[in-house]
Amino acid sequence: MKKLLVVYLALIIAFLGYVYQSRAPFRMQNGQAEEGLRGSISEKYVMVTFQSGIDYWKNCLKGFEDAAQLLNVSVEFKGATQYDVNEEKTVLEQVIARKPSGIAISAINSEALGATIQKAVDAGIPVVLFDSGITASRVKTFLGTNNHNAGATAADKMAELLNRQGKTAIITQPNQSNHQERTQGFVEAIEATYPGMSVIAIEDGKGDQRETERIAVKLLQEHPDLTGIFATQANGGVGIGNALLQLGKKGTVKVIGFDTDKGTLDMVKNGTISATMAQGTWNMGYWSMQYLFHLNHGLVESGAASRGAAVSTLPVNTDTGITIVTEANVDGYYAK
Amino acid sequence: MKKLLVVYLALIIAFLGYVYQSRAPFRMQNGQAEEGLRGSISEKYVMVTFQSGIDYWKNCLKGFEDAAQLLNVSVEFKGATQYDVNEEKTVLEQVIARKPSGIAISAINSEALGATIQKAVDAGIPVVLFDSGITASRVKTFLGTNNHNAGATAADKMAELLNRQGKTAIITQPNQSNHQERTQGFVEAIEATYPGMSVIAIEDGKGDQRETERIAVKLLQEHPDLTGIFATQANGGVGIGNALLQLGKKGTVKVIGFDTDKGTLDMVKNGTISATMAQGTWNMGYWSMQYLFHLNHGLVESGAASRGAAVSTLPVNTDTGITIVTEANVDGYYAK
Repeated sequence: MKKLLVVYLALIIAFLGYVYQSRAPFRMQNGQAEEGLRGSISEKYVMVTFQSGIDYWKNCLKGFEDAAQLLNVSVEFKGATQYDVNEEKTVLEQVIARKPSGIAISAINSEALGATIQKAVDAGIPVVLFDSGITASRVKTFLGTNNHNAGATAADKMAELLNRQGKTAIITQPNQSNHQERTQGFVEAIEATYPGMSVIAIEDGKGDQRETERIAVKLLQEHPDLTGIFATQANGGVGIGNALLQLGKKGTVKVIGFDTDKGTLDMVKNGTISATMAQGTWNMGYWSMQYLFHLNHGLVESGAASRGAAVSTLPVNTDTGITIVTEANVDGYYAK
Repeated sequence: MKKLLVVYLALIIAFLGYVYQSRAPFRMQNGQAEEGLRGSISEKYVMVTFQSGIDYWKNCLKGFEDAAQLLNVSVEFKGATQYDVNEEKTVLEQVIARKPSGIAISAINSEALGATIQKAVDAGIPVVLFDSGITASRVKTFLGTNNHNAGATAADKMAELLNRQGKTAIITQPNQSNHQERTQGFVEAIEATYPGMSVIAIEDGKGDQRETERIAVKLLQEHPDLTGIFATQANGGVGIGNALLQLGKKGTVKVIGFDTDKGTLDMVKNGTISATMAQGTWNMGYWSMQYLFHLNHGLVESGAASRGAAVSTLPVNTDTGITIVTEANVDGYYAK
């Protein structure tokens, strides 16, 4: 009887010991991590955006959540409801005050938010920037689209749609650097590779669907030989599509849009728009979480130890890729 | 007595059940991964390089191994001993034949190795490319230095060393694209930002230390007003350093080298070379392993499901960063 009690006790101790060593994060055995990369559910990572209601962020957040699930940590999504830098600043300050385990920020405006982002860095909170970049910041890690490449990819697709011949135009937001890069990438690719094509106008759509429609109508009336229009902003494709419908030019003028909001996808599906450029939004979210987790757990420093603060401890720029969405693959892009 | 036996048995079953559920990879509970990201020690990931004995790969492999340790998987390092594309091809074919869980390849030559890399892809083996790129391949994922930025960063450092005044030269390998990009980045930054500076010569060091020394001596004799030389290849800094020692010009002509082999670091330490550009080699290895692990475990596809083969399932280009090594931080860069 006593013997059995001893066995019984030994077994309980072994069990508890097993539970303990298998739950402690990053416990090593024979040089291998006992548990793999695994955090604690009490770690909270926050994604901060602007215009937080738009479809665009859904897939970013999905990637962020998917990584969090695998890493056994928690996430939260916060954002300015409007395209308003002061609102985003306020949201970001509230998030910083709660000292989360990490923040992935898509910043409207690099200068206006720089000081607030610096506050997070100074408080020791891991920060990465995704989607929209920031300059003059101590944050060295950015994940997002190479917009120059995205513009060039759109130009190649336009050339394919137009059999390498014809006049094209761009409707863009000339005051935003990512839109400037898309425009430049498109123009340079046309000039470098397609002698039969030209870009005859670059117009300001002011980020507004109605304004883009108005400008597209004007362009198409003034230039009856215009055969292709590239919109660099998300609602531009729908604006141009509506202009085509208004003028009865659906199908005769080729339109390439940007991003994958529902309106654009619907017009790709029904053939009003030929294609739209999908950014690697899931990748932005997924790898933002991975990078933040690595910063928070000090897992990036083993290669950089003793090298001083100048060392980049994470990749500085992660190009999350671009994909062309057409009628053939549009169904996979609707937000779930 | 019987009662105790029942308890005893129940405890054993609970214990085994616990062990089982906690060991199965990616077992989910309440939507969270039970174990975090964790593979099996039987998964073998291989890093394939060329000139496999050089210091350069040590830190790449360290990153690869560090990630493998955290993810509980195995690694192997293979490489052509020479700078020989046929030898690398043979090594790669031997690796493919053993069907590893993933291969990270630094390819000498994109065209000559393209078909062999395609063989790996066709065999369903996850492949990423790091350090040296490849074109015309179905492999879309590359991790490495943005060489244009690296050249521009070297130009900024040179301007700082020369107080924004003076004539400079570049010794490079004009037939290799990464060296072309470093050269172009340097030249463009000087032209764009430093009106008091110029690049008066771009010479071919043929990847050889002696040849670089010979050319540097000739340059310095022909242009006594030359005050700075940038070497884009690893042994170039030492070649130029030896030229300075030969001519008694140590310290009066500023030299910026590339990479962190022992010879270069020694010359940075003793002041013969002012600085050298360190690539993010640990990052290349670490994130190559992470990407391969994600491909092997199908962890990148949840955001891309039903979107067809055109979707990039991983970031397409990961810029692993560049750091300036000077006397102040050189000690951290010696290979361990």
